[in-house]
Amino acid sequence: MRLDEIHSHIERYSQNFIKDLVTLVKQPSVSAKGEGIHECAELVEKMLRDVGFSTQQIPEKGGNPVVYGELESSNSKKTLLFYNHYDVQPAEPLPEWQFGAFSGEVHDGKIYGRGASDNKGNIVSRIKAVEAFLKIFGYVPVTVKFVVEGEEEIGSPHLASVVRQNKDLFSNDATIWEFGGTNHEGCPEIYLGLKGVLSVELRCKGASRDAHSANAPLVPNPAWRLIWALSKLKDEEERILIEGFYDNVEKPSAEELQMLSCIPLEEEKIKKTLGLREFLGNTSGTKAKKALLYDPTCTINGFLTGYTGPGSKTVLPKEAMVKLDFRLVANQRPTEIFRKLVSHVKKCGFEDVQAVQSGSTEPSKTPVTDPFVEVVAKAAARIYETKPVIYPTSPASGPMHLFRNWLGSPVVSVGCSHPEAKGHAPNENLTIDGFIKGTKLMAAILNDFSYSEGA
Amino acid sequence: MRLDEIHSHIERYSQNFIKDLVTLVKQPSVSAKGEGIHECAELVEKMLRDVGFSTQQIPEKGGNPVVYGELESSNSKKTLLFYNHYDVQPAEPLPEWQFGAFSGEVHDGKIYGRGASDNKGNIVSRIKAVEAFLKIFGYVPVTVKFVVEGEEEIGSPHLASVVRQNKDLFSNDATIWEFGGTNHEGCPEIYLGLKGVLSVELRCKGASRDAHSANAPLVPNPAWRLIWALSKLKDEEERILIEGFYDNVEKPSAEELQMLSCIPLEEEKIKKTLGLREFLGNTSGTKAKKALLYDPTCTINGFLTGYTGPGSKTVLPKEAMVKLDFRLVANQRPTEIFRKLVSHVKKCGFEDVQAVQSGSTEPSKTPVTDPFVEVVAKAAARIYETKPVIYPTSPASGPMHLFRNWLGSPVVSVGCSHPEAKGHAPNENLTIDGFIKGTKLMAAILNDFSYSEGA
Repeated sequence: MRLDEIHSHIERYSQNFIKDLVTLVKQPSVSAKGEGIHECAELVEKMLRDVGFSTQQIPEKGGNPVVYGELESSNSKKTLLFYNHYDVQPAEPLPEWQFGAFSGEVHDGKIYGRGASDNKGNIVSRIKAVEAFLKIFGYVPVTVKFVVEGEEEIGSPHLASVVRQNKDLFSNDATIWEFGGTNHEGCPEIYLGLKGVLSVELRCKGASRDAHSANAPLVPNPAWRLIWALSKLKDEEERILIEGFYDNVEKPSAEELQMLSCIPLEEEKIKKTLGLREFLGNTSGTKAKKALLYDPTCTINGFLTGYTGPGSKTVLPKEAMVKLDFRLVANQRPTEIFRKLVSHVKKCGFEDVQAVQSGSTEPSKTPVTDPFVEVVAKAAARIYETKPVIYPTSPASGPMHLFRNWLGSPVVSVGCSHPEAKGHAPNENLTIDGFIKGTKLMAAILNDFSYSEGA
Repeated sequence: MRLDEIHSHIERYSQNFIKDLVTLVKQPSVSAKGEGIHECAELVEKMLRDVGFSTQQIPEKGGNPVVYGELESSNSKKTLLFYNHYDVQPAEPLPEWQFGAFSGEVHDGKIYGRGASDNKGNIVSRIKAVEAFLKIFGYVPVTVKFVVEGEEEIGSPHLASVVRQNKDLFSNDATIWEFGGTNHEGCPEIYLGLKGVLSVELRCKGASRDAHSANAPLVPNPAWRLIWALSKLKDEEERILIEGFYDNVEKPSAEELQMLSCIPLEEEKIKKTLGLREFLGNTSGTKAKKALLYDPTCTINGFLTGYTGPGSKTVLPKEAMVKLDFRLVANQRPTEIFRKLVSHVKKCGFEDVQAVQSGSTEPSKTPVTDPFVEVVAKAAARIYETKPVIYPTSPASGPMHLFRNWLGSPVVSVGCSHPEAKGHAPNENLTIDGFIKGTKLMAAILNDFSYSEGA
């Protein structure tokens, strides 16, 4: 059986794979700050080239380069595309990291560092799966394309333009999305969709300089203005109050609701991980799953105004700002939601509150009935020796719609992460075991897809 | 006329006075950060001792020392007490200072630096007025006491205890309070009262660590909790919603309302200084004056949560905090208001919001009919050659009630500042002209008080 040989190869060379991942983690690539972007793109391109891909960096004015790699199969006319991103979230708050945020420290069976799990582990595991085929058989079972972008963590502002200009280059029969992993029970998780996201900054200015707070009866306070404006955006029952916000929200189908019952939401473990006594509104069970996957949200990511140091300061601040993100579900459109937000804020009387959009992606979904979903699900069942959990959509976001909706092929997300990976938080990590199993899964998908019908 | 000789002396030695003020400004004394406190107390005590005062530093457990000075008059049984403070506000934001915040730069007829106007200029002017009498006549016309505390800018948390333990030492027939100056027209301003203040920090915690904002449907967001709690504290019409907040508010008497009409609120100049097109709620005229002096307030001084750097970060923060101050008017009590705030926050359903009091003072007032008010008003009219403006109360706060209510003597506030002094803001300054005239006024008050009847 040819996969057995591949898997033996993967096990034999796992130390090399870890070394390559550590190298990639050690290279900071914080898109929010423009830190280390080009160095990281070079590194990813080199990794692809070293395996045998023909590569290029696709530039986009004002954006970070997209690393593209292609390796033709002599065996099959099918093409599988891997979508990944080499950028990472900011590492702050730095003091909360046990090891340096970009140390790539290997400790207790885990690789630590910002990006270890999201998304550098997945990049390396996929490249290594391809490499294994080449090493053992000298060819890949299907044509493989890599699209590795550098702006996912800031909402992929330039990827739409890149995809629009490279539809032929990126054309494929199926796409494996960037993320995924196992749950607390060790079952692989497969995601068929993503929420959209709209990131916004609201800003308000008052006096031209900070004033003594004794002047409060006469001087407008931009912090209060923002507080009141925000209180008009969402109520204490988490209902978003923007007029027309829920207009186009697609309710889950009966088939999808059925799938929900198979999804094990590991409530107690999630609560323990986050130090929570209960979920928001004491939600649990199917209601919690439904909320997580089908509720659009409005989250305060940050708020800053005035004096926030030790002690007190009787100051009336001159400005205030809040960062928000909206998670959107099918079929909400970020551009429309932004327009509604701006109009709602004005209508509520906050002409002095300025809204600035800082990124967006649309929601998207692949039907559970698509044959490629079965290919992935069966491969996962084999590698992990247990039934995978299929999510009709993920609560997270990404530019999946550019591939799913624009290029038309099915998009399925699976990866090598785990539930304690701490993505977007201090002490992000990836287990070595997850990393190696994920590499085997990618090899299995490459193999099985070449034999599959349908796609 | 003995005052003429005193005033000539003050003019002749004005350069020395400026030098002493610059020395004092150069010594940072930020009570909110505990920066330079003891060094500054030493400096003030030395200045008093050098003039001839018997001095001491009154320690108070956990607090900054109160500098006390006393100089007996051989001429009169009357005692005048000067209340001042040697501590200053934090200097942030530092980049907005034209000269260093503690440079004491003299430029264009002004002395620049944090504390130049609030309150170090007043400390020096008062000491110099006493010195002038000693130099010219060898005695002071009345017994003079100085109480110079080091915690005024953080709400004087230990002064109550110091006054309580030193009632005999601090006993006096009249008190001159720490601040005052001229308005845009050059008329001296006299204040007969102060608002109270209550400083509070509200804190809320959510998950034990920052979470990915995709989890927003399940994870409570402490930032939203604080926003909603704040929106229950004050509405968009600036009405404070805390139950019973306005219960004990004393309405201005007919006599006080009469005084309001004589107060020239320099609306256009204030607006220009603060870069405002209009005051809050487009208030103006008597309504604006009444609001400024008689309205209790609730001000957001600072708010911090989550990621506030460049770009966006899809994070759900683990904690949020807001700093607030309440300005209180006669006869509100900070302890009662704090109790009502805590109970209101709980009653509104925010059991997860913790309120921490970080300082408070009560409101206080001296009646306009008190004979000492006339002494000060007449002296001011003579020095500035124009009718002073008498405020029944100031919109600012301080621990005046400890002297007015506890020690029982009349308390009047006059000083050497000016309307562009930028107290509590970058580029704080004092005009040399105001400083010297203020010194003459203090000498005149010392002189006239010794002859006055009543007190």
